[in-house]
Amino acid sequence: MSLNLDLNRQERQGFPEVVYGEGKSKDQITAICKKFEESKTPLLITRLKDKHVKIVENFFSWGEHKYHKEARAFSWLPEKAQTQVKAKVCLLCAGSSDLAVISECEVTLRFLGLDPERIYDVGVAGIHRVLSKKETLAQADLCIVAAGMDGALPSVVGGLVKCPVIAVPTSVGYGAAFGGVSALLTMLNSCANGITVVNIDNGFGAAMAAWRILQVR
Amino acid sequence: MSLNLDLNRQERQGFPEVVYGEGKSKDQITAICKKFEESKTPLLITRLKDKHVKIVENFFSWGEHKYHKEARAFSWLPEKAQTQVKAKVCLLCAGSSDLAVISECEVTLRFLGLDPERIYDVGVAGIHRVLSKKETLAQADLCIVAAGMDGALPSVVGGLVKCPVIAVPTSVGYGAAFGGVSALLTMLNSCANGITVVNIDNGFGAAMAAWRILQVR
Amino acid sequence: MSLNLDLNRQERQGFPEVVYGEGKSKDQITAICKKFEESKTPLLITRLKDKHVKIVENFFSWGEHKYHKEARAFSWLPEKAQTQVKAKVCLLCAGSSDLAVISECEVTLRFLGLDPERIYDVGVAGIHRVLSKKETLAQADLCIVAAGMDGALPSVVGGLVKCPVIAVPTSVGYGAAFGGVSALLTMLNSCANGITVVNIDNGFGAAMAAWRILQVR
Amino acid sequence: MSLNLDLNRQERQGFPEVVYGEGKSKDQITAICKKFEESKTPLLITRLKDKHVKIVENFFSWGEHKYHKEARAFSWLPEKAQTQVKAKVCLLCAGSSDLAVISECEVTLRFLGLDPERIYDVGVAGIHRVLSKKETLAQADLCIVAAGMDGALPSVVGGLVKCPVIAVPTSVGYGAAFGGVSALLTMLNSCANGITVVNIDNGFGAAMAAWRILQVR
Amino acid sequence: MSLNLDLNRQERQGFPEVVYGEGKSKDQITAICKKFEESKTPLLITRLKDKHVKIVENFFSWGEHKYHKEARAFSWLPEKAQTQVKAKVCLLCAGSSDLAVISECEVTLRFLGLDPERIYDVGVAGIHRVLSKKETLAQADLCIVAAGMDGALPSVVGGLVKCPVIAVPTSVGYGAAFGGVSALLTMLNSCANGITVVNIDNGFGAAMAAWRILQVR
Amino acid sequence: MSLNLDLNRQERQGFPEVVYGEGKSKDQITAICKKFEESKTPLLITRLKDKHVKIVENFFSWGEHKYHKEARAFSWLPEKAQTQVKAKVCLLCAGSSDLAVISECEVTLRFLGLDPERIYDVGVAGIHRVLSKKETLAQADLCIVAAGMDGALPSVVGGLVKCPVIAVPTSVGYGAAFGGVSALLTMLNSCANGITVVNIDNGFGAAMAAWRILQVR
Amino acid sequence: MSLNLDLNRQERQGFPEVVYGEGKSKDQITAICKKFEESKTPLLITRLKDKHVKIVENFFSWGEHKYHKEARAFSWLPEKAQTQVKAKVCLLCAGSSDLAVISECEVTLRFLGLDPERIYDVGVAGIHRVLSKKETLAQADLCIVAAGMDGALPSVVGGLVKCPVIAVPTSVGYGAAFGGVSALLTMLNSCANGITVVNIDNGFGAAMAAWRILQVR
Amino acid sequence: MSLNLDLNRQERQGFPEVVYGEGKSKDQITAICKKFEESKTPLLITRLKDKHVKIVENFFSWGEHKYHKEARAFSWLPEKAQTQVKAKVCLLCAGSSDLAVISECEVTLRFLGLDPERIYDVGVAGIHRVLSKKETLAQADLCIVAAGMDGALPSVVGGLVKCPVIAVPTSVGYGAAFGGVSALLTMLNSCANGITVVNIDNGFGAAMAAWRILQVR
Repeated sequence: MSLNLDLNRQERQGFPEVVYGEGKSKDQITAICKKFEESKTPLLITRLKDKHVKIVENFFSWGEHKYHKEARAFSWLPEKAQTQVKAKVCLLCAGSSDLAVISECEVTLRFLGLDPERIYDVGVAGIHRVLSKKETLAQADLCIVAAGMDGALPSVVGGLVKCPVIAVPTSVGYGAAFGGVSALLTMLNSCANGITVVNIDNGFGAAMAAWRILQVR
Repeated sequence: MSLNLDLNRQERQGFPEVVYGEGKSKDQITAICKKFEESKTPLLITRLKDKHVKIVENFFSWGEHKYHKEARAFSWLPEKAQTQVKAKVCLLCAGSSDLAVISECEVTLRFLGLDPERIYDVGVAGIHRVLSKKETLAQADLCIVAAGMDGALPSVVGGLVKCPVIAVPTSVGYGAAFGGVSALLTMLNSCANGITVVNIDNGFGAAMAAWRILQVR
Repeated sequence: MSLNLDLNRQERQGFPEVVYGEGKSKDQITAICKKFEESKTPLLITRLKDKHVKIVENFFSWGEHKYHKEARAFSWLPEKAQTQVKAKVCLLCAGSSDLAVISECEVTLRFLGLDPERIYDVGVAGIHRVLSKKETLAQADLCIVAAGMDGALPSVVGGLVKCPVIAVPTSVGYGAAFGGVSALLTMLNSCANGITVVNIDNGFGAAMAAWRILQVR
Repeated sequence: MSLNLDLNRQERQGFPEVVYGEGKSKDQITAICKKFEESKTPLLITRLKDKHVKIVENFFSWGEHKYHKEARAFSWLPEKAQTQVKAKVCLLCAGSSDLAVISECEVTLRFLGLDPERIYDVGVAGIHRVLSKKETLAQADLCIVAAGMDGALPSVVGGLVKCPVIAVPTSVGYGAAFGGVSALLTMLNSCANGITVVNIDNGFGAAMAAWRILQVR
Repeated sequence: MSLNLDLNRQERQGFPEVVYGEGKSKDQITAICKKFEESKTPLLITRLKDKHVKIVENFFSWGEHKYHKEARAFSWLPEKAQTQVKAKVCLLCAGSSDLAVISECEVTLRFLGLDPERIYDVGVAGIHRVLSKKETLAQADLCIVAAGMDGALPSVVGGLVKCPVIAVPTSVGYGAAFGGVSALLTMLNSCANGITVVNIDNGFGAAMAAWRILQVR
Repeated sequence: MSLNLDLNRQERQGFPEVVYGEGKSKDQITAICKKFEESKTPLLITRLKDKHVKIVENFFSWGEHKYHKEARAFSWLPEKAQTQVKAKVCLLCAGSSDLAVISECEVTLRFLGLDPERIYDVGVAGIHRVLSKKETLAQADLCIVAAGMDGALPSVVGGLVKCPVIAVPTSVGYGAAFGGVSALLTMLNSCANGITVVNIDNGFGAAMAAWRILQVR
Repeated sequence: MSLNLDLNRQERQGFPEVVYGEGKSKDQITAICKKFEESKTPLLITRLKDKHVKIVENFFSWGEHKYHKEARAFSWLPEKAQTQVKAKVCLLCAGSSDLAVISECEVTLRFLGLDPERIYDVGVAGIHRVLSKKETLAQADLCIVAAGMDGALPSVVGGLVKCPVIAVPTSVGYGAAFGGVSALLTMLNSCANGITVVNIDNGFGAAMAAWRILQVR
Repeated sequence: MSLNLDLNRQERQGFPEVVYGEGKSKDQITAICKKFEESKTPLLITRLKDKHVKIVENFFSWGEHKYHKEARAFSWLPEKAQTQVKAKVCLLCAGSSDLAVISECEVTLRFLGLDPERIYDVGVAGIHRVLSKKETLAQADLCIVAAGMDGALPSVVGGLVKCPVIAVPTSVGYGAAFGGVSALLTMLNSCANGITVVNIDNGFGAAMAAWRILQVR
């Protein structure tokens, strides 16, 4: 079996290699754990398959290790994590069904040394909910906004804040939601200026984009 | 040339036949005008081609006749129009590019004896704009909301009012707006309960749906 | 676990919060039941997952409580329901495969205090079937018409009645039905004037739209 | 310039080669006219470009020759046409905008020696219109039904007649009509049994299919 | 439970009601069997769910009854079937994976009193295979051609025979086959004149269309 | 005519209102110019129609005014522009056909007080070209990368730099490029972590996103 | 104006830079001509806009220069071309409407020093036509097969020859041909093994692929 | 049960019949094994269903027989395989999730007598990885490049090598990857000249195309 891990990415790009668990076999997951543990490199596995959770949990018995169920992610740090980046990141989601995506995003941000704040259940159909968070939002350095179905929340948030807004369409919905396509198109066509978008359900990607942005500071 | 006009529809369904101008030839338009004038039946032509405007304008020299440029519609009433239906209908649109659709809607409603009110340029990216109209909206019997691009306005309006909301996606936008598909999907997936939707750019259809609803009263 | 329920919506918009069961976890469903029972707020859960039915049924032992299997919905009323809205609503469906959607619609309407009438198996390929219901339809205040496959029924009904017609495309069909897209497009392009449309399989949304319309009276 | 015409098709398949004018250059059209005139083979050109009409009309000065404007087709017969196939074919269309497609169909059928009957403006939104033609339809050997927008007419006709029904979606409509895709999907998913479908706007193809069917007799 | 069966269709349209098993519940299937047996009406159920086969088989103990596994269809005739329609129908399919569709087609045709002939595994990538059947095809009154993937077979057959050709796209394939869409488009765009098309995997519909055509004779 | 301009946006969100010229009529454009000139508010019009250029140019005779042909944008500043934001922004494009999009982006950035650097013709099919710019890229605070056709450039750039990367799909290409959809999908699925995406051809949006990000500093 | 031409590509990859004319401005075309003439590098411009033909023709007065109208391409060779690659390449096309694509392919191949052979009008609906070329095809080293509409020809050719087959879908057709998508899908799903595909209308790309393959020898 | 195997294909086209396991029933698989074993014809089954592996393994007890798990393929050779074709084929893939497709490709190539070399985990987001293989690639006679998600690798490889490049999109990815459509479009629109493409996940097809190409030598 062949693995070509990029353990030096931290040096080159400033962040550690993150493993995408979806397409990996049992053997590949085991080999990955082994390599990371040996080299004491911090490890984050996203989209970990249910049947592989036990394997990973059994592997890491020291350092900070945790399986984040809602996010379907596993994180391992040889040493205790510290908030290294001082920035206020707000994670907003329209409905409670979007929480899995926001969770993946949050786990990744914490793995990268950030301490984000969740603002949930603020869908635009009850506009008073997001408006009641106006002051919190005004202090944000960056907002990540997840929404399924009509995907309208980022447009409203984008008009309320000056800071960068990263929109994450989620696959929540049915029928003409087309697995997140409806929300994706809404966000790409947002009438709020300067919103950027990542792939459907890509909470991890949104976190990485945030990380890039906050390094600029 | 063959024409099978339904001049008795008013009796059967309560509203006059409306002619869709898009696919009609010069000869068909002329024949239609002739028949309606002879029978003194009120006439509305929507999507009238530019090259046919003169023909129609030359035909009708008496009664109330007008070509509505923004709406691309021509209306003719043998007798002076009267507001027959007492109802407050609000027409909202997100951007000034959606005005053609709202116009078609307005012309149709006036033709049907209603007196709607326009509320324009209230896109969700500046949420204060629609919120400033809250009191007007609270008194509405029905709202028709047109939006292109992200199509998010109906979701916000739907959460603000109790009355029926008819959403009209417009083909305004470019790229991933896909000629109104983005806005259409947003509206079909609206997180506000009980929003209904008509075809892209179908201002006429929204007006007809409003008319059906207001007859229920 | 975080829940941000909108228990005061009845006051604000005139109808109670309805819970969408699809994306909810076991913990979320339990917390929701608890909150509603404590506050004695009427509760409707749509798209309830099979594995959560028992949880909900065990929770509510008093008041009017019922799991509607065909509709996959659970309703609970602290006090006995009463028909509050006097209006004749007809629910039509083209084939017996569309009954699940019509059922969700019916359960919601009854929850909102209406008493709709079902007219089933009246697909347009046997046009005599819907024509035989002409008199019933003539007395309707509102029609909700569900159809999968060719989705043609609303066009015919829309031409027969003067009242509002809400079309619900269903995901019934195979091949080029594309999970309801075929029926959705048919309805958006209906040659009957003033038909409005909701999302695929959205029986709940159609009921809510009906409720908005009937409040206008 | 190279041309590989199939002038013997009549012998092999029983019908003459028909030329599709759309993609042909001026030189190709001229060469085609020349070859057909020389060999005295009957010629039908469909989708003839406006700028090529004069060329073709100038070429044929003898025999039966005619440019059919509505159909955008040119037909030439060295000898006078005769109704060779005794069969009653009905051509139905939903709206007057579909007439171009029905025209192409009719011209082709007449070229093949048939004498079809047009039934126009019988869209399903006024179901009494098609029902009033029931007796005519009962005597038909074959129906060709063209419709744009919702494309619902073939489903109704298919339920009224026993004979073969060929459905032709047309590109009439706007927005979610998607250039005829909506009507095409409706027809492929028709709830009337045994309807068959041809390409969007393919009046010629429907006529050829009719011809194949009527040869079976 | 409500059922609105059309047991008199045979009289009206000349063919018996056929039941589409896909969306039916256990209770619906049982009620259908009961009604048909009582009225001694011939019954064909297509797309019968695996879990319902036993129910149906237990119901019919007399007359001609058979579950056709490959076709997933059940047929029941109170009296012995007879070939009532004298016509040579050829059923062609490109690959052995398309046999389920051809089977549904064949079972339906036999139920309708026809005796079709199968010609299988004649995909165009080995063109000698279909050419070797030229003589058989020349005698056919009608051809039904099923193909998945590239869907190219009907174009070749359409050029070889004079008789009607009904093309059935199948969902066989992967990737860009898009569940039969690739084959469907190929057939709608066939360069062979006068080919007609039915829905993806609709072997039943093709048989019904054949039946309509052969009644013309 | 009605205009609801947001002249105070600079105060509220920190950047001036930008006018989208595409859907505007001659009258709307004139009214906009008037309002901005009167209030001495800086003005940027993007996607200005060719036929409106003269109108705008005639209007502004003082201050810094320029029509940027390649970008189809007009900018007007009452006072001389100054680079207010100290940041190195690199604008990369794959081919010379993408320059219109990069131009719109550049004009907007300069309007906002930035001084970006263009790096053009560095498509990945000649990978040495972008690699030769490695040192320049290493010093960038932010990269905006436009590409049509395969849209692959942002994936490569994203792997080379640590800073934020905003990807702009362009409508350059033909056939399966589908007006920029191919490039859009490529970018949404980029295997480089933390890339964000804006709408097809949305050079303006990318600039606004950059502006939001650089304000974080 | 900026141009970053790759005049050394011949050395690096063995073939000269080819210029894609579609998106180029007048200034860009002029600059390109100048650079190539100065460096005496052979030049091929594909998809040259009609309005730029004169500019290019006026520029090159010596060497081998020609504008190929059907192909919309201009070629210039400082010295007389010679067939450098000894290989038999067959160019097949289904209909005469596909000739523009085959032409672009042929011009490119000749520019690269090959001498291909055209086999035209061999669509599969008249299968005898391609079968009559069997002997020619048997001697081919490589086949390029262009087809629009049903795109079926490559499947048949792929089954007849052992050599590489490159399929080129063309945008010929209407309705459900979707600008070449139908043919593209047919070719990607070809039941003939080992067929490869290029973009819609990409005759140039097919030629380049052929050139790569023939270099292997 | 009917099977129409083409056991003589090796003679006719130079390569043995390969069986596509996906749509085959247990009985079909058994019959196939029997026929091949009796005639001692080499057999390759691709996409073998898990539940059929045992059947096939039990059948072949002599000769070279192996089930390739990663590739889901079974190969059987009556006599020991030998590298018959002297050619250097490189198989590249972007991520370890693409290995299944590369595996199917490799197994097929070995079955055809080739000895390919794998180069894995060389996605473009870490461009140094593929650049480090430059020398190996320079010696390749042919490259097969598989990639999912952004599908960008073939564009880079195509610019690095002179030899033929066959691109294989894989269904790896989620959201807007659309089951491989994103990668497919990227490859069809590759800015590297002369890349050809096969169907999504079609490792087998790529191998067959390679085989055709290498026979040219």
